[in-house]
Amino acid sequence: MKTETTEILKQYNENLQNYERLAEDVEYELIKSIKKHHIKTHAISHRIKDPNSLLDKVRRKKLKKPFEQIHDIVGFRIVCLFLPDLQEINKIIHEVFEVFEEDDKINNSELNIFGYMSLHLKCRIIAKKLNENTEQNIPFEIQIRTIAQDAWAAISHYLDYKKESVIPEQLKRDFHALSGLFYVADTHFSIIRQEQSNIYFEKNEKSTTNQFT
Amino acid sequence: MKTETTEILKQYNENLQNYERLAEDVEYELIKSIKKHHIKTHAISHRIKDPNSLLDKVRRKKLKKPFEQIHDIVGFRIVCLFLPDLQEINKIIHEVFEVFEEDDKINNSELNIFGYMSLHLKCRIIAKKLNENTEQNIPFEIQIRTIAQDAWAAISHYLDYKKESVIPEQLKRDFHALSGLFYVADTHFSIIRQEQSNIYFEKNEKSTTNQFT
Amino acid sequence: MKTETTEILKQYNENLQNYERLAEDVEYELIKSIKKHHIKTHAISHRIKDPNSLLDKVRRKKLKKPFEQIHDIVGFRIVCLFLPDLQEINKIIHEVFEVFEEDDKINNSELNIFGYMSLHLKCRIIAKKLNENTEQNIPFEIQIRTIAQDAWAAISHYLDYKKESVIPEQLKRDFHALSGLFYVADTHFSIIRQEQSNIYFEKNEKSTTNQFT
Amino acid sequence: MKTETTEILKQYNENLQNYERLAEDVEYELIKSIKKHHIKTHAISHRIKDPNSLLDKVRRKKLKKPFEQIHDIVGFRIVCLFLPDLQEINKIIHEVFEVFEEDDKINNSELNIFGYMSLHLKCRIIAKKLNENTEQNIPFEIQIRTIAQDAWAAISHYLDYKKESVIPEQLKRDFHALSGLFYVADTHFSIIRQEQSNIYFEKNEKSTTNQFT
Repeated sequence: MKTETTEILKQYNENLQNYERLAEDVEYELIKSIKKHHIKTHAISHRIKDPNSLLDKVRRKKLKKPFEQIHDIVGFRIVCLFLPDLQEINKIIHEVFEVFEEDDKINNSELNIFGYMSLHLKCRIIAKKLNENTEQNIPFEIQIRTIAQDAWAAISHYLDYKKESVIPEQLKRDFHALSGLFYVADTHFSIIRQEQSNIYFEKNEKSTTNQFT
Repeated sequence: MKTETTEILKQYNENLQNYERLAEDVEYELIKSIKKHHIKTHAISHRIKDPNSLLDKVRRKKLKKPFEQIHDIVGFRIVCLFLPDLQEINKIIHEVFEVFEEDDKINNSELNIFGYMSLHLKCRIIAKKLNENTEQNIPFEIQIRTIAQDAWAAISHYLDYKKESVIPEQLKRDFHALSGLFYVADTHFSIIRQEQSNIYFEKNEKSTTNQFT
Repeated sequence: MKTETTEILKQYNENLQNYERLAEDVEYELIKSIKKHHIKTHAISHRIKDPNSLLDKVRRKKLKKPFEQIHDIVGFRIVCLFLPDLQEINKIIHEVFEVFEEDDKINNSELNIFGYMSLHLKCRIIAKKLNENTEQNIPFEIQIRTIAQDAWAAISHYLDYKKESVIPEQLKRDFHALSGLFYVADTHFSIIRQEQSNIYFEKNEKSTTNQFT
Repeated sequence: MKTETTEILKQYNENLQNYERLAEDVEYELIKSIKKHHIKTHAISHRIKDPNSLLDKVRRKKLKKPFEQIHDIVGFRIVCLFLPDLQEINKIIHEVFEVFEEDDKINNSELNIFGYMSLHLKCRIIAKKLNENTEQNIPFEIQIRTIAQDAWAAISHYLDYKKESVIPEQLKRDFHALSGLFYVADTHFSIIRQEQSNIYFEKNEKSTTNQFT
């Protein structure tokens, strides 16, 4: 066991610089391509998994080849404003990166189930774009969520609502209900944006029409 | 088929007076016993299933012995104010009637599922209380729900959100999310009631203590 | 004071039968005309002010001519399903009755204020429709609200959230916030109804078109 | 006007390095002292007003001495998880900085008004702590809000719900209602945290008691 740990840490440290370069490159690419599509985001950030949580995961999941089996050593989070942005950003990411796994914890669950909502993509840099000396085909994970989904996730993570021992059933139900409440807020904001944009176009059409009368 | 229909209608009409008497007796009993426990309700009402929906149900479910198999020809709805009232009223009903089936569509579903919420009890009048000439052991159903649960149920029923053909998935998810939103409101009102009552007791204790100093 | 009380009770009792007849007539008219416009309501009900609360109001407001100054001895409540129904029902009432005062506690408040929401109309039966022997030009009040607004009003009334002495500021703010929450639910349900109806019309148009191809 | 603009830009550029140093120093201090009090935050960030929005503000408000009259050239935002954290962080800031103006857009508004919610503090570094060569007594602004309040603010800012011309009254009311909805979520999460902590202490007390039996 000890040798294994040492070996993992050794490899992690050897890769660290590559992780950091990858993080910077991908974040730059994300910001640029999302901006190009005129989508306003609330936050784009990254983190490199610290060695302790890497080792934890290896032990917990009894992984034999951690650097092939763990895909979120380099992780990104994109917090957007509106529900429909999620799919737009998803599409952009499919264009700029190779997505080898997709987990949609928003639309893939049953219609009546509410809880953690986020869109997770496991990606790699597209081969021909690879910067020779660096990224060595390292996988990375991108999480996309709205700001309301992020609020729920952050608070739930803090309260650790999953711990069986600590929270009574009734409070757990409250948690999930609050996810429903945030979902209502999210769809409501989208509707307002839609209506606002309809009004704007109507006005513009009218004024365009008026120009020629 | 026709003879069957005629037979069902004949029996329904023969029973109608008993249904009405039962409805009045049970409603009177419900109002009296709930009041005795100082629980404020928003509404207590009953309806007798009309013959057409009875026949519909017989056909839809291919029932051979409708008067034994259908238990909600006489139905009651109790709309209360607070979530904890549901269980208190449930307990009262178990005391005054024989409950032969209980369907708790609130606490028995998974913690993360939201939708129709109501507590349904299938009951009979307790044998020794039977008014000789009347109720003939007719079963009846009592639905108990909060006013917020009732709001959701009424609007959903109107919009018939279950119809596969009419509503897109996304709107259906909204419906269930709104059930979560109403659940948050319900638990929140209960918390306010609890806090208010704590404050009240604290004040009363203080003033009682003061009396003797 | 005593003579005054006796006098008020005497007149109240003399009028009681008229109040009851008025209540029945108006309720019948409300049900009929709302149904004619194909608006589904959740509940239509009435109450006649009991003599004690009448006397209370007279004292509290120091009224000299209570039967002219109090307009809600006969009161009606219409609970509808959707926000836009409020204005439709309002319009209907203006057609069938003489409305001499209107208090819109929904749209007339500031856009950022939330609390009790209801539409109150003070009415009289239109002269030419008067049933000679009865209603004697008695005013009456009609309250119109959605089922979600009704839920808030019922619970708030029970908890008596206005009592300065009992509820801390923070809980009072919660109450008003819950009014906002119910308002979001109300507008959301209206949007779903609208979208559903758009989908329905699109389908129908298509199928009509298809008929002729 | 032109000379004035030139003069402002000149002074801004001369100060820029000080702004940046101040930003770093204050952010470091904020992170350190909040951590010392074991309060988990969602994000702590700063921004330096860019010269164009500075000039805008000078013109809009017709300011004669912009560098004395504008206090948010250096601005910080602390996004916390729970409502009660706001006051705890407020207290901490009063201890580490000189607060010369406080604007509580959460508790100081009427109980029934909902909209933008944030706690704004105008601060200076306490004289004796001044790093001689740097901060020159520059004022700065700290905004403190919960993650739910931040969600509302970000989306509202994007949709620019204040623009009179673009959004109909009804949608504006929706905005404010959504602020109420987020407030319910915020208080609800605080209640869950409180209950969870009560349960935790009860358990711990019991296990401590058990040790000695």
